Amino acid sequence: MVLVAPRNPLNIGAVARAMSNFGFAHLRVVNPYEVAFRDAKSAVGASPVLTSAKEFSSVADAIADCTMVVGTTAIRHRQLQQPLKVLSVGAPTILKLLHNSPVALLFGSEKWGLSNDALSHCHWVMHIPTRQEHQSMNLGQAVAICLYELARGKPPRAVAERHSAADSGTVERITETLLAALHKSEYINPKTGQLAEEKLRRMIRRFHLESTDAEVFLGMLHRISWKLKAQK
Amino acid sequence: MVLVAPRNPLNIGAVARAMSNFGFAHLRVVNPYEVAFRDAKSAVGASPVLTSAKEFSSVADAIADCTMVVGTTAIRHRQLQQPLKVLSVGAPTILKLLHNSPVALLFGSEKWGLSNDALSHCHWVMHIPTRQEHQSMNLGQAVAICLYELARGKPPRAVAERHSAADSGTVERITETLLAALHKSEYINPKTGQLAEEKLRRMIRRFHLESTDAEVFLGMLHRISWKLKAQK
Repeated sequence: MVLVAPRNPLNIGAVARAMSNFGFAHLRVVNPYEVAFRDAKSAVGASPVLTSAKEFSSVADAIADCTMVVGTTAIRHRQLQQPLKVLSVGAPTILKLLHNSPVALLFGSEKWGLSNDALSHCHWVMHIPTRQEHQSMNLGQAVAICLYELARGKPPRAVAERHSAADSGTVERITETLLAALHKSEYINPKTGQLAEEKLRRMIRRFHLESTDAEVFLGMLHRISWKLKAQK
Repeated sequence: MVLVAPRNPLNIGAVARAMSNFGFAHLRVVNPYEVAFRDAKSAVGASPVLTSAKEFSSVADAIADCTMVVGTTAIRHRQLQQPLKVLSVGAPTILKLLHNSPVALLFGSEKWGLSNDALSHCHWVMHIPTRQEHQSMNLGQAVAICLYELARGKPPRAVAERHSAADSGTVERITETLLAALHKSEYINPKTGQLAEEKLRRMIRRFHLESTDAEVFLGMLHRISWKLKAQK
């Protein structure tokens, strides 16, 4: 469970409580409003989930060891670039993956949800169906509903995947290396660089790289990037 | 949706928000902590659900026009007297009933849940499966999960019930009248009166009275009770 830029200590506490209710242990927080995170952690009766929560300064760092990253959104006016699944469809998929490898579930800030940058780290995005006229949910409640849905699934059957997926750290290094190479080769217009970076990140995730392939691919890109630098 | 003795304005607000998210309009509150209810109602951006919430001084009054009353519990050490259904089983049942008649869903206070007295008004009780070691949920989160589960059900098919069920007001008058009669006839030990009342209330609910039968039954009991008084 990864909270990106949460603002309200009560929400952070509520998220930790729901995790404890439904048996999820690993809470990670990216760039929280500092006072909120401190308040939540030091609250009387804070759960072990909360006191052991880890803080990160970027989404990339928080999900580095995860092989699948799932975002959440209330949609509204946002033009999503990733596949969107309704919670009841997405949850069984996550459960199946969880059996083999760590999955990150990302929630954005109370006010804005996940940024496009944060979303660009996600393989796909999940949403809770609500009334059209009132889609924005309370953070603690949205998390509770997602975890309830995950917990209701029967324990996944022991089906070993033939290949292990690459972890997000490796995939991000591939993204960065390729990005650097594209910049150096002037493929990317510096004015639209941020947008290009997000597009690229999403594309690399759609590859669903296996771990051995990822290492090889990264090696190739490193070499290319090095060569580009050498030429300059 | 009936909240019995809620203490925290943030929770009341969170309940109203989840109701708005999932399209439930009627919020009733029994004996709230007055300040909390006032604060919640007057909060900036309070939803229409909250501003139109109604206050009652007893569970009986709050559910008088409902034909089915469903309680909620985290179980723990409580010895339940009513049938217990897991949320995923109970929700479709509620949906089917909602098509024909009003159903009340009761939630207790943050600290104690529903009292035995409040539970005695319920036909059956629902619970959200959680981890054995941490069953107590946040009120706003528990409500959100229940409403999510209710909203996910397809719209119920139009199956007309052959007989209409008695409303809770009539059933409660039956309970009271019979209780009075039992007191007068010294069937009930005054020392254990409270317990007897709850047992009786549950029993009457298990009858699942139809509305015409209920009227007839009530008339009978009124007559009996009047007769007992007359003899004294």
